[in-house]
Amino acid sequence: MYSTTQYEVKILAESLFGNNFMQIAMIQDKIVPIAELEPVYLDRGIFFGDGVYEVVRSYDGKIFALEEHLQRFTNSLTAIGIVGVDIYQILRRVLKSFDAAGISNAKIYFHITRGSALRNHVCDANLKPNFFLTVTELEDDSEAKSKGIAVSTHPDWRWKRCEIKSLNLLANVLARQDAAQKGCAEAILVDEEGFITEGASSAFFAIFGRTLQTTALTVNILPSITRIFVIRAGKNIGLEIMEKSLTPQQANDADELFIASTTNDIIPVVRFDEKLIGDVKPGKYTKLLSEEFLSFTV
Amino acid sequence: MYSTTQYEVKILAESLFGNNFMQIAMIQDKIVPIAELEPVYLDRGIFFGDGVYEVVRSYDGKIFALEEHLQRFTNSLTAIGIVGVDIYQILRRVLKSFDAAGISNAKIYFHITRGSALRNHVCDANLKPNFFLTVTELEDDSEAKSKGIAVSTHPDWRWKRCEIKSLNLLANVLARQDAAQKGCAEAILVDEEGFITEGASSAFFAIFGRTLQTTALTVNILPSITRIFVIRAGKNIGLEIMEKSLTPQQANDADELFIASTTNDIIPVVRFDEKLIGDVKPGKYTKLLSEEFLSFTV
Repeated sequence: MYSTTQYEVKILAESLFGNNFMQIAMIQDKIVPIAELEPVYLDRGIFFGDGVYEVVRSYDGKIFALEEHLQRFTNSLTAIGIVGVDIYQILRRVLKSFDAAGISNAKIYFHITRGSALRNHVCDANLKPNFFLTVTELEDDSEAKSKGIAVSTHPDWRWKRCEIKSLNLLANVLARQDAAQKGCAEAILVDEEGFITEGASSAFFAIFGRTLQTTALTVNILPSITRIFVIRAGKNIGLEIMEKSLTPQQANDADELFIASTTNDIIPVVRFDEKLIGDVKPGKYTKLLSEEFLSFTV
Repeated sequence: MYSTTQYEVKILAESLFGNNFMQIAMIQDKIVPIAELEPVYLDRGIFFGDGVYEVVRSYDGKIFALEEHLQRFTNSLTAIGIVGVDIYQILRRVLKSFDAAGISNAKIYFHITRGSALRNHVCDANLKPNFFLTVTELEDDSEAKSKGIAVSTHPDWRWKRCEIKSLNLLANVLARQDAAQKGCAEAILVDEEGFITEGASSAFFAIFGRTLQTTALTVNILPSITRIFVIRAGKNIGLEIMEKSLTPQQANDADELFIASTTNDIIPVVRFDEKLIGDVKPGKYTKLLSEEFLSFTV
């Protein structure tokens, strides 16, 4: 690795700086002294998923439910013990970047990690958190909304603190990959007791008659912001709300199914594993809920 | 964000390139066009923990059990569907960087993530994986080895695929933080059935009489490489091996306890939650096991 001269330099530096001098990193095939690394390479977000995130979206230039998302972000930060984050600074950064991008229907993703340091499970309490954000254009979901999507079930492999919106999302990724291989747009997670928890990146809803059913928040799921507004929309259009887990078999027998998420609000589900739902097109109440939901966003 | 002139440039570029031009990122307070980001900022390792890792160490210039670690790394890559990684290339990178660092007692950490892309759970199958490695000097563990350490129990919040050595380690970090706050060097994870699984970053062993007991690999734990050599050492010194889960109460009553990991091989445990173990110093068999283990490393 070293020519003789370089080796002599190394020995000299070692006598001055100790062995720390010799600590190196490798990025793909390239060797880099650790001291010269960009801090992002030592981000605890990548070593441990030691961070939390949020996604908000705008409708026609107006960010929806930003306050609720920032409150949940604060809860997530507290839950994993990242302290000293000024939530008003985060608010200003979101608004500044949204303004800079000038995208009227935008997806705004942001995360905070505990900071950058040499890899060690326990770290200095004074580590400075890292903030990262992207503003991107929302993908067109008009076909999914007008025709509905297929979903497939997958075991819920996630950890036991799903109320925290953390960067530990490999279980979600693997479930979504499995769904994609089956030609499905979302994976519906099923826990060890055989009950549906939620989608890999969405909340899950069923309609039976005039009853709107979804998992209760007491179960190990994310407290979805969109879920709050879907329930409000359900009440507004006169549906009865039932917060109770359902099994895949019960979902098969629903009159209507849909998923809900920040980026796509309500997306009808017309196939659940092998079972075709309703008349294989978006159901009556799903459409009414979508219209009611959109009235909240203006 | 933009001066008038910059804004005019933006409008022109938008007319040429479409809205993609406007996609931006923010790092701390700084706005950066996404197209100008270092790929590491868009690493799926940070967005999802979508990657796997290994840690090997050297004893006096010789890397221990590298083949076993590379085999487990291959298993982890396969389990999460990262394909096309040349494991011999990884081997060459490990050897090259170890040689370049010239640290005789080194810790070598490396991970592969699925690659860098705009955040989306499902990604292009042709994404190029990212490799990252560090070679650092091992921390001095002589005091922990000679005096033993205290450990504390913590609920095992991890996901259901702990046989995969993935970057989803927030549950481990939170358990270790809790332990550190209690003045303990390791957290011992206890599952929902009340059984010990393993340490947050170690395997866990108890000695009763002449029996060496540790969790069976059928449980949701990592197949520890060090565990293999500890069991071999146990057989060599005439201990009976029992692969069966134990409860914290049973651990309290053990004659000796220890943890084992790649970086520190065997570390005696002299306090388990509030309970002092044995005569609060490393036990007889733990010492014999350590000596036998070290004989494998030369």
